[in-house]
Amino acid sequence: MATGARGRRPLGSGTREAIAAAARRQFGELGYRRASLRSIAVEAGVDPRLVLHFFGSKQELFAAVVELPFDPATAFDLVLSPGEQGLGRRLATFLLDVLDSPEGRKTITGLIRAAASEDQAATMIRELIGRRLLLPLAARLGRDRPELRASLVASQVVGLAMARHVVAIPALTTASRDELITALAPVFDHYLTGPINPT
Amino acid sequence: MATGARGRRPLGSGTREAIAAAARRQFGELGYRRASLRSIAVEAGVDPRLVLHFFGSKQELFAAVVELPFDPATAFDLVLSPGEQGLGRRLATFLLDVLDSPEGRKTITGLIRAAASEDQAATMIRELIGRRLLLPLAARLGRDRPELRASLVASQVVGLAMARHVVAIPALTTASRDELITALAPVFDHYLTGPINPT
Repeated sequence: MATGARGRRPLGSGTREAIAAAARRQFGELGYRRASLRSIAVEAGVDPRLVLHFFGSKQELFAAVVELPFDPATAFDLVLSPGEQGLGRRLATFLLDVLDSPEGRKTITGLIRAAASEDQAATMIRELIGRRLLLPLAARLGRDRPELRASLVASQVVGLAMARHVVAIPALTTASRDELITALAPVFDHYLTGPINPT
Repeated sequence: MATGARGRRPLGSGTREAIAAAARRQFGELGYRRASLRSIAVEAGVDPRLVLHFFGSKQELFAAVVELPFDPATAFDLVLSPGEQGLGRRLATFLLDVLDSPEGRKTITGLIRAAASEDQAATMIRELIGRRLLLPLAARLGRDRPELRASLVASQVVGLAMARHVVAIPALTTASRDELITALAPVFDHYLTGPINPT
């Protein structure tokens, strides 16, 4: 399997996976900007041109290797199927579980750092979030303005991740899980089911 | 006044201001990471060592030149003094005015990009936000857990700025000002005055 840190890996079924694994690691640890096609190729033991051959561009490579920390369809079904009673609390609990798991936190803060670092990455992340998170959530909401409702939820989740895990505002890092769920639940209820149309 | 793009400016009362102006422009347009002490010194027409002499470090230079797009004391007094009735709506209206002004938006997205780009910047921005925004807001709230309340508001504002102006999620960029105020007002009411303690 290993070909040595700088060895050359032959073209084959494992090559694409080796590039994806190296890309996932470098995007996660270095961020979108500092990870380079060259350094990813070196780690995967392939010629940099092979990375382009398999993935097209750095942006497409990024979009291809981002793994969401949960399956959106399963997660949204689970949260929404019991009905609107307790919906905000179930969603807040689920999202805090994601943010408090190492993988979930790493993926979400990685996306935030990438989006903030470069307009190209922001464009790609907009498409990724839209297609893989907002659309599936909006499709399950039997309410007016489903895309706006899903996007408002996303804005609070992104803001919480940014304030709690990137900027690390003390009142948010020290708040207990129960406190955050109590604070967030009515907000998600409002965004998902409350009156958001101006009268 | 001008000394030429690469001329040397003599030590004097205008030097500090020239460095601050160049730093403000470069941090705003290039972001924290890409702006360098050298390029700021070149633009200001001074020796790079003078930048360190006046400001100590890149982080301190950044903290010194960030100008908030409003005066927190004045703004919070204005929003809070009429009492809790309509508070969320007044705060949402004020914050959308800030985000919809070119200067306000540039400052806030600049802070977000800087915080996301580098741990050192995040540390500095945490102190900046804590001292200049969260503390003055918390001090004016006659409620339990004022720091947590102020920080929850900040998390939603940061998330809105990120989702609407950095990632540019379509449902948020196309929502009208009235729609966003209607969506946000009850959230700010809840964070500032609602029950946020778990029972």
